[in-house]
Amino acid sequence: MKASQFFISTLKEAPAEAALASHKLMLRAGLVKANASGLYTWMPMGLRVLRKVENIIREEMNRSGAVELLMPVVQPAELWQESGRWEFYGKELLRFKDRKDADFCMGPTCEEVITDIVRREITSYKQLPKNFYHIQTKFRDEVRPRFGVMRAREFIMKDAYSFHADYESLVRDGYQPMYDAYCRIFDRLGLNYRPVAADTGSIGGTGSHEFQVLAESGEDVIAYSDASDYAANVELAPTLPLSGSRAEARAALEKVHTPNVKTIAALVEFLDIPVETTMKSIVVEGEEEGGIVLLLLRGDHEFNDIKAEKLAGVKAPLTMAAPELIRAQFGADGGSLGPVGFAGKVYADFALEKGADWVIGANEDDYHFTGFNFGRDAVEPEFVDLRNVVEGDASPDGKGRLKLARGIEVGHVFQLRDKYSKALNASFLDNNGKAQIMEMGCYGIGVTRIVAAAIEQNNDECGIIWTDAMAPFTAVIVPMNYKKSEAVKAAADKIYAELSAAGVDVLLDDRDERAGVLLNDSELLGIPHRIVIGDRGLKEGTVEYARRTDSEAQSVAADEAVAQLLAALKS
Amino acid sequence: MKASQFFISTLKEAPAEAALASHKLMLRAGLVKANASGLYTWMPMGLRVLRKVENIIREEMNRSGAVELLMPVVQPAELWQESGRWEFYGKELLRFKDRKDADFCMGPTCEEVITDIVRREITSYKQLPKNFYHIQTKFRDEVRPRFGVMRAREFIMKDAYSFHADYESLVRDGYQPMYDAYCRIFDRLGLNYRPVAADTGSIGGTGSHEFQVLAESGEDVIAYSDASDYAANVELAPTLPLSGSRAEARAALEKVHTPNVKTIAALVEFLDIPVETTMKSIVVEGEEEGGIVLLLLRGDHEFNDIKAEKLAGVKAPLTMAAPELIRAQFGADGGSLGPVGFAGKVYADFALEKGADWVIGANEDDYHFTGFNFGRDAVEPEFVDLRNVVEGDASPDGKGRLKLARGIEVGHVFQLRDKYSKALNASFLDNNGKAQIMEMGCYGIGVTRIVAAAIEQNNDECGIIWTDAMAPFTAVIVPMNYKKSEAVKAAADKIYAELSAAGVDVLLDDRDERAGVLLNDSELLGIPHRIVIGDRGLKEGTVEYARRTDSEAQSVAADEAVAQLLAALKS
Repeated sequence: MKASQFFISTLKEAPAEAALASHKLMLRAGLVKANASGLYTWMPMGLRVLRKVENIIREEMNRSGAVELLMPVVQPAELWQESGRWEFYGKELLRFKDRKDADFCMGPTCEEVITDIVRREITSYKQLPKNFYHIQTKFRDEVRPRFGVMRAREFIMKDAYSFHADYESLVRDGYQPMYDAYCRIFDRLGLNYRPVAADTGSIGGTGSHEFQVLAESGEDVIAYSDASDYAANVELAPTLPLSGSRAEARAALEKVHTPNVKTIAALVEFLDIPVETTMKSIVVEGEEEGGIVLLLLRGDHEFNDIKAEKLAGVKAPLTMAAPELIRAQFGADGGSLGPVGFAGKVYADFALEKGADWVIGANEDDYHFTGFNFGRDAVEPEFVDLRNVVEGDASPDGKGRLKLARGIEVGHVFQLRDKYSKALNASFLDNNGKAQIMEMGCYGIGVTRIVAAAIEQNNDECGIIWTDAMAPFTAVIVPMNYKKSEAVKAAADKIYAELSAAGVDVLLDDRDERAGVLLNDSELLGIPHRIVIGDRGLKEGTVEYARRTDSEAQSVAADEAVAQLLAALKS
Repeated sequence: MKASQFFISTLKEAPAEAALASHKLMLRAGLVKANASGLYTWMPMGLRVLRKVENIIREEMNRSGAVELLMPVVQPAELWQESGRWEFYGKELLRFKDRKDADFCMGPTCEEVITDIVRREITSYKQLPKNFYHIQTKFRDEVRPRFGVMRAREFIMKDAYSFHADYESLVRDGYQPMYDAYCRIFDRLGLNYRPVAADTGSIGGTGSHEFQVLAESGEDVIAYSDASDYAANVELAPTLPLSGSRAEARAALEKVHTPNVKTIAALVEFLDIPVETTMKSIVVEGEEEGGIVLLLLRGDHEFNDIKAEKLAGVKAPLTMAAPELIRAQFGADGGSLGPVGFAGKVYADFALEKGADWVIGANEDDYHFTGFNFGRDAVEPEFVDLRNVVEGDASPDGKGRLKLARGIEVGHVFQLRDKYSKALNASFLDNNGKAQIMEMGCYGIGVTRIVAAAIEQNNDECGIIWTDAMAPFTAVIVPMNYKKSEAVKAAADKIYAELSAAGVDVLLDDRDERAGVLLNDSELLGIPHRIVIGDRGLKEGTVEYARRTDSEAQSVAADEAVAQLLAALKS
């Protein structure tokens, strides 16, 4: 492609609204253009990247045996009412009425539509398993669209839905092949990612992995082992009971005056003690009306409400106890609470089990206890997992220690089981002629988001750094003075023709711009391989070749540049 | 592709709601599946056809120099308010509010969005001309979605928008290259089509051609010359003044009693005269308040309101005169009107100019005149073009005679001129540094509709007949008893492997179905080339080869079948 026949539109500065590196760079490189909040046009340069991502996804989906179709963007309300999500789904589901006052929505996902199709098309176990996918525009009316295409309202998703006669087939013929295909896709795209065990969230069902591209700006935190493949969303990674025996109690229980100390930070500062010796109290509503449950954590640990919600006797959804209830039960306000004298159910985090001589609220405003010990000063609580893991915790698989990293979720595989197939009565006749509800899995990839995530992971002060697989162009030829120097033009045209003939996706930047502009743009655009052609080099029969990641270009004989670039592409 | 790894779902009978052949066949062949009124899923078989159409369009658009991008489906109201279409566009524009109560619409077309992008991106004549296109989901909230994907609400369109420094460039660099690309696209798809001159309708601007696929079920009527390339929508084709001199008046003006005769059909029957001797009167409002204009046509001719609306003195939009006004002016009701004694403006159709002794209303209820002659019985009217052309009319280009055919509009090229660029102030600096408004063209192809139109044009009692270019699979191998006969399986697998290796898009129908089902499906699905493999033939070393259009299959040596099919594909 010649630049003059294409459309390159770069900016020196990113618009002020862009905060994230990928958002800034996508706007500066002219990959996308905002049309409204959370709505983007993929400009010609960006669309080339998007299509390369799509093609890799499509190839690997087909290889896995999934069959492509194309469901509509607009979906009838009836199906969502049948699944129950018409009411349940929040405002992210954009609902509207057509001219006949019938209810519709813009599809944020397609479980209902595909399940409706499958229940009409598949009637026998002989037709199972089957995995359908499409690559299609989705819409979610985000309350705060941000970070460019990373969290846009309109976006492109690859979503697949597999249907099975039983759970074994779901795992064997659906979930695992999709998991493997996702690994191949993200490998081919050259992304640094991890599949992590994940919560299934509002979509329901059991069994789920997220595919997280590691990047400092990621919204998700991942815990992974330094000695095994273990990885999970930090909210989901369990902590283990500590081994060994409990430390000996050395101090006596002593009440100390701590005026206006309401937080762990204030307590640590006021008493000048290590935070690891403090304990914090969280009071939540119990399952029984008016009941409460006391949850204890080490002062520096982060409370995990997903874990707490699953404890016996705790009300779901998790609800913090009201201040009046707390005062009535403890005789003190939040910030001065503790287990001493509390007769209700107490859960304490595993991290508290082996310690002694804790500092804790005295159930009297402005007072704390030092030298608190379980068993001696209050009954032994039930020790459970109540907190988020931290770096250095033992890996739950028993191998190594956990590290934390931030990630951007680009894919997700779910075992939905019968959540939708039951609601929509998607049944089949098994080999005994008996009607059974299908088992179902769903598998999503954020196609447009991948582009942003890749940039977030791979950029420098000059711009984007693409892998060969995702780059809008694999190589760029930058001729200095193409319009005026016949020698440069001839050399550039020759190399362009040869690379094109060899099937390389090459851009000849024949724009009538200063050399500095062309060179800066080639770096901003992140094109992996660059050949610079100038009169000075040509006098000695050379051109310059550099990878985008090279700190310096190398001088290459002009008639060997193509061979060298082809060799670099193969390696 | 093996059928067992794909998804074939055919029906013996089409659902009752399908009236059109293409709609019936698309449902029976399992190309699409309805999700709601006017909303369809493209099933795997249909999607393969759609992608082939898309790819041919994309190749020819790229060849023409157009640059692909991707605009969003959801569009902000602001841009539509700026162009004035937010108010003007009818209920086909699906408007809705997002969670923040801001107005949006589902894009039925993208003039506003692209013009907004271009006014921000293009500032200099050096960046012009430029032609941007995308292939994208559109939505039009049709009052009566019907005929399957032929008139769906959600559909896929290729829309291109070109921008130019002046009108000459619009024609030379935009309109003509697009016209040519469209011809190449429809040629490659193997469609019998005509580019026809067309009205520009509500989109505005001047200069437009429709691309019509000829089919008896088409909603549009096309007039074309039997001796030249001339073709136009029947509403737009002009009629020419008749040559020669007027026939001599032989009869005297005579008033005859015609009780209850209110129509030309009744008049012709009552007086037992040829319809070609009658004249009908149409009364429309004039430009001046309360004024009327009398329009005269031959009794058998169809009134053309587009032509009438453009006449001097006639009110636009064209408005039929109210019955009270007619009675006040003529002293009679519609059905008994004529020019005798009428003092206002009279236009008569060219077809009336050379005739004599007409039968016409007498401006008295239940009475007509016979023997009416212009000039003698009423003043000479102004002779103009007032009617739709009919078969046998002279072609407007002076070459041959017109024929009529029905067509399905699959493409449209428009010279928009400055309609949108002016409203949105899309200006550029010319080579004198002076700001100028861009000239603009727009070019659409109904991608999903093409699939239906092709079927409408090419089908028989057994099913669809695809061209090689559009077929979901180019060839199908039908093995009789694939699961049980090892010889058949071996021969089928071998031919499948060889055709696949040769790059042929081949389907091996390995479904465990009776031979009759497989054969019928291959015809219903319209796959252009078929190889049938059975034990009986294999004993003599033969298989059967047939094109979809062949009435009988031919016996071919099994080891020559691949070569024969490849030769047929090349021819």
